[in-house]
Amino acid sequence: MNRSRLEPLGVPTSGYPADSAPERAALGVPTAADRWIVRQLTSRLGDAPIDVVLWDVPPEKAQPAEGRVTVRIGDRRALFQVLVNPELHFGDLYSAGRIQVNGDLLTLLDAAYRYLDARGVPGWLRRGSRLAPDLADSKRNIHHHYDIGNEFYELWLDREALQYTCAYYADPSMTLEQAQQAKMHHVSRKLRLQPGERVIEAGSGWGGFALFMAKNYGVNVRSFNISHEQVEHAREWAKREGLTDKVEFVEDDYRNAAGAKSPRYDAFVSIGMLEHVGPGNYRALGNLIDRLITPEGRGLIHTIGRDWPEPLNAWIDKRIFPGAYPPTLRQMMDIFEPNGLSVLDVENIRLHYAETLRAWLDRFEENVDAVRKMFDETFVRAWRLYLAGSIMAFVHGKLQLFQVLFARTGYNGVPWTRAHVYEKA
Amino acid sequence: MNRSRLEPLGVPTSGYPADSAPERAALGVPTAADRWIVRQLTSRLGDAPIDVVLWDVPPEKAQPAEGRVTVRIGDRRALFQVLVNPELHFGDLYSAGRIQVNGDLLTLLDAAYRYLDARGVPGWLRRGSRLAPDLADSKRNIHHHYDIGNEFYELWLDREALQYTCAYYADPSMTLEQAQQAKMHHVSRKLRLQPGERVIEAGSGWGGFALFMAKNYGVNVRSFNISHEQVEHAREWAKREGLTDKVEFVEDDYRNAAGAKSPRYDAFVSIGMLEHVGPGNYRALGNLIDRLITPEGRGLIHTIGRDWPEPLNAWIDKRIFPGAYPPTLRQMMDIFEPNGLSVLDVENIRLHYAETLRAWLDRFEENVDAVRKMFDETFVRAWRLYLAGSIMAFVHGKLQLFQVLFARTGYNGVPWTRAHVYEKA
Repeated sequence: MNRSRLEPLGVPTSGYPADSAPERAALGVPTAADRWIVRQLTSRLGDAPIDVVLWDVPPEKAQPAEGRVTVRIGDRRALFQVLVNPELHFGDLYSAGRIQVNGDLLTLLDAAYRYLDARGVPGWLRRGSRLAPDLADSKRNIHHHYDIGNEFYELWLDREALQYTCAYYADPSMTLEQAQQAKMHHVSRKLRLQPGERVIEAGSGWGGFALFMAKNYGVNVRSFNISHEQVEHAREWAKREGLTDKVEFVEDDYRNAAGAKSPRYDAFVSIGMLEHVGPGNYRALGNLIDRLITPEGRGLIHTIGRDWPEPLNAWIDKRIFPGAYPPTLRQMMDIFEPNGLSVLDVENIRLHYAETLRAWLDRFEENVDAVRKMFDETFVRAWRLYLAGSIMAFVHGKLQLFQVLFARTGYNGVPWTRAHVYEKA
Repeated sequence: MNRSRLEPLGVPTSGYPADSAPERAALGVPTAADRWIVRQLTSRLGDAPIDVVLWDVPPEKAQPAEGRVTVRIGDRRALFQVLVNPELHFGDLYSAGRIQVNGDLLTLLDAAYRYLDARGVPGWLRRGSRLAPDLADSKRNIHHHYDIGNEFYELWLDREALQYTCAYYADPSMTLEQAQQAKMHHVSRKLRLQPGERVIEAGSGWGGFALFMAKNYGVNVRSFNISHEQVEHAREWAKREGLTDKVEFVEDDYRNAAGAKSPRYDAFVSIGMLEHVGPGNYRALGNLIDRLITPEGRGLIHTIGRDWPEPLNAWIDKRIFPGAYPPTLRQMMDIFEPNGLSVLDVENIRLHYAETLRAWLDRFEENVDAVRKMFDETFVRAWRLYLAGSIMAFVHGKLQLFQVLFARTGYNGVPWTRAHVYEKA
């Protein structure tokens, strides 16, 4: 894989820790002030099994006792940076190896979230984001994350449908593959897809769900995506599956889906795209849906969300998902309320995303040598932190996962109950 | 029943139509202007099978053809009033008999809702109500509606649990009694009530649900209600059922539920009370729930709602439910967002309320002579219109019925899926 692929990540690779004794000596002995900062940092972590050591401890000696985690801060500037803005700087320092974590990274992140929780940030006081990326912003943002290489994602996503969104562990013993299939059935059942119906999808990913719907529910799908690499992959896949007559992948922004002569669709579906839309564009999205679906049409939006408005973690926004924003249910109502759409069903499956991410992280680690070969150690650490941090964000309820089913206000052909979603297939 | 009970309804009983020929003559012959107004009114009803006649047609001759409805407007002032503000005046004029409807009232109301829909009122432009009744307001409002006599409600509510809230027709062939039992099971299953748990209920009604939970799920219930007649009825009922050790009915405002020494509850539940709380009080309600439930606590709010903010129908607000306000989901988020509560599940069962109201209206008509004897014809007509109008409001999506299940943000003992709600008992 081309090394230029790494560029979008942009983590500074210089400034690696001084690992040899002479270089350590050049850093100087930690002062009383340095030790005081360490005590401030550790006191914030409560009684978590975390030990923090500084650059005077050689990396090979910074090993944790059983069940504990040792964090080694490799230089004074790193120490100051993590004190000033841990949310933003920890990620880069960890990625660059200037902060090392020996022991279970999840234990450290768990303690960090407990600390954040306990601090009681009055997140609901913050103004909701009016983030409204335009077509060019979106194109750039999506390219940053999704175009870093299909081969990379294939190393750790489920092998059957390449779903880079929350799975549904209908039964907790499911494999990742089974849980992703279950997620796609869950969404299709909520939408009650019928053979021959027309479905429009906003955000195709690598095409797995569009092809799944066509194959398993006999619908015709038109699916929009602005990630060039993903669309190419999806089109190839449709050919291999012999589904090019049922599924069309359009390399364009979903905002261009309603042409003058565009057909009306029986269902609108979007899995894991709303995070990239921005609250300032929600009303326009709802207006688009209103123009896209038939009077009997219905829709489902599956998205990461929040219990109260809060910007995305600063480091994730800078390095991993620029411009992403997980909305609250209140913010999502901008899609429905002004556009005559009626919410039928909201399900929050937050803990399923923690499970999904655990499975991804396990496979990522199993394939870490291949990832390192594709990119480098900085990339490996950044993605490890992103996956592990996301697990803990879902475990601690900093992030939610909402599936919102809707139809037009006053349309009476809606399901009488939700029992059909839970009937044995 | 004491006739003074009628007073809260306050419909003017004077001004009945002139039914004898001499009185009709005194009203004068309808003019060309009168006829023009009639044409304006009927044109608004599209091609609905509605005929409007005026006071020159004797009541006994104002009979509709098969499948049609004849509306007889009994005097010129009634005609002007219904032209100026049909939403407010039609109810009083119909109740007083100054407007008569011969044929199916539902057909007329259906046409009225179609007309309202077609007018495309941009309801989402309206500001949401900041309605915030205080304790005294609430006491007065609740007295107006719920204290008009238990015997009256017993004539047409379900006979087993006296539920004056939306039933759940798990199977459309259910009787009203079965559907109310199913509603109570549905709510209890969503809350996963366990024997020995402590439940707090805001709004008892006549006590049916509190007693149901104690009997069927083995929980201890403390239930708040400010309707004196309802609390007395509930306490008697608890005695008859031998459940006074499991269920306590408190005649007080739910806002007084959290005393200094009050216990923590495993579950908070409120069925059909939020309509009387007022959006301006939602944040305080959520704060109260936060103080009432344990860290592992969960809650469910069942309420009439809206797809976009709109005040209650003016006539219903004036004559039937003063101070009532059905919120949007966005408005409901004031309960959860500022108070660290996480929405797990929202279900909209709007059409079940239309079914429930149909069953109520049928039983009301079966017992209409008894109702007339308790009150008078004005009361009968007002309640007929209220029940029939509510059916059409739910059928046309002007009203929704939301069940919102929640727990604390970050609490991980929540159900893994919703399948348990749909398992056979």
